[in-house]
Amino acid sequence: MKSIKVFAPATIANVNVGFDSLGLALSNVGDTIELSVNNTKENKITEIINGGSIPLDVDKNCCSVVIRKMQEALNDYQGVDIRLVKGFASGSGLGSSSASSAAAAYAYNELVGSPYDNKELVAFAAEGERVACGAAHVDNVAPAILGGIILARGMNKEDIIQLPAIKNIYAVTFFPNIKINTANSRKILREKVAIETVSKQIALMGSFVASLYEEDLHLFKSSLKDLIVEPTRSLLIPKYEELKKVAFENKALAFGISGSGPSVFAFTFKKENAKKIQAALEETYKKTGIETKSYINEINDNTGARVID
Amino acid sequence: MKSIKVFAPATIANVNVGFDSLGLALSNVGDTIELSVNNTKENKITEIINGGSIPLDVDKNCCSVVIRKMQEALNDYQGVDIRLVKGFASGSGLGSSSASSAAAAYAYNELVGSPYDNKELVAFAAEGERVACGAAHVDNVAPAILGGIILARGMNKEDIIQLPAIKNIYAVTFFPNIKINTANSRKILREKVAIETVSKQIALMGSFVASLYEEDLHLFKSSLKDLIVEPTRSLLIPKYEELKKVAFENKALAFGISGSGPSVFAFTFKKENAKKIQAALEETYKKTGIETKSYINEINDNTGARVID
Repeated sequence: MKSIKVFAPATIANVNVGFDSLGLALSNVGDTIELSVNNTKENKITEIINGGSIPLDVDKNCCSVVIRKMQEALNDYQGVDIRLVKGFASGSGLGSSSASSAAAAYAYNELVGSPYDNKELVAFAAEGERVACGAAHVDNVAPAILGGIILARGMNKEDIIQLPAIKNIYAVTFFPNIKINTANSRKILREKVAIETVSKQIALMGSFVASLYEEDLHLFKSSLKDLIVEPTRSLLIPKYEELKKVAFENKALAFGISGSGPSVFAFTFKKENAKKIQAALEETYKKTGIETKSYINEINDNTGARVID
Repeated sequence: MKSIKVFAPATIANVNVGFDSLGLALSNVGDTIELSVNNTKENKITEIINGGSIPLDVDKNCCSVVIRKMQEALNDYQGVDIRLVKGFASGSGLGSSSASSAAAAYAYNELVGSPYDNKELVAFAAEGERVACGAAHVDNVAPAILGGIILARGMNKEDIIQLPAIKNIYAVTFFPNIKINTANSRKILREKVAIETVSKQIALMGSFVASLYEEDLHLFKSSLKDLIVEPTRSLLIPKYEELKKVAFENKALAFGISGSGPSVFAFTFKKENAKKIQAALEETYKKTGIETKSYINEINDNTGARVID
């Protein structure tokens, strides 16, 4: 194989109940990477479309860092030319660097004959997160590779758990184009959480997982509450409470902040409700002068990184 | 119906991952209550066997308090004589007051024609916990009524979730007869938890619930870790680390503190392993001079409160 083209999706991390451990994939929004064997031992970023300030330096770009880590682990250096097409904005809170890192890991693995399985790729993709965000979190990269809803206790294979999705649940994702730096968004979090709150949030994660296996929409709805992150991070998002209110008025089952924001998401049953929620969220921002993007995605298991063309 | 006899089981609360929300029932250890209609509007405690210092005063005894709450809710006062046989020690950390409260709620409900379903009884039994322990926790009373493994986010019906048990999992429960006051045991807990620890413990609850639905013993084992309560509460239990070590040497899948202690528990696959763990725990305490009791119970769904005789 001389070249390959791979798509990896945007992702919602945290998902109300799983700060730094839970994430899910948005099937039809994401990044596309093309790798071509260049017959050297070096990797090269040849082009980044819609990349903004994403670095072309192979030591700083998350894609080339991921590929280099794989080459080191395999002790086999098949240098590649890398062309990246960004499908959504950096800094959106939808796992921009993760989609690129996941695409790079998945594509290079395919190119060299699949020495790793998908769960093993998560640790490599996390190295892209480390270079892009300063920490190797996996709550975005794991679903960006595996698709669906992923609980990641860590980056080892046995710590990555695919949870079942409930049929006909749609995610509406709404991105207000304001700058929230991930590092700042982490700083606003309380460093310590009262034990009563901890106990409640743990129980909500437990009941969320049960709701997926039971396919219980009532339990799903009553579980998806964020007692830890939302109270502070929501302050950074203009009109957050208003967005939440109109989402629930339009049959949202849940509403929350995607990763470190500023994107927010709503879950709902059936596509027609998703469309109503999307319209209501857009309407809420109409007079703010803030540019927005929004997406509708069904949540299901076949939404991870994949070869295209 | 003029009289009824009901058994309700001892329970393990917290179960490593679910502080104040998770509990499970021990089928063959528990309390037995006998209620007999006394043709007055008043309840009376006629006898408590093995009750130690449990009060006979109907305003202070958890059984009579529960029954009075049910009478008030029903606005129907069928006074009963109450005879209670305690099957295990108060202060053991195995839900002693909860077993009595659960038995009382279940028995009175049966006696008056089952106006409530089992989940609705939890809130009444919790009133017994309030009088016995000062707080209406439900992580013991919910499994004592419903049996099996219960996740209780609160005391409302929709907050009580029955989780599936994995076949052939046994609990070994070991009670060292030392005094640990529940209130003191709560005081030793840190009031606030670092957010990194919170995130990890939340993920462990999520993967624990997944392990039950997946019937995945490896995931079950790797999930049952307590990062929040064990580090401090274990200090109150003599030889805790040694008990934990011998349990894992004998094929334990998990080891932890039951409720506020001093009882500890181990889970294992198959009864033969449970017997080995029980022997190893007993052996560890042999020279301490501390009296012990230990129990082996299969964890399954049919272990809640039930009419006997």
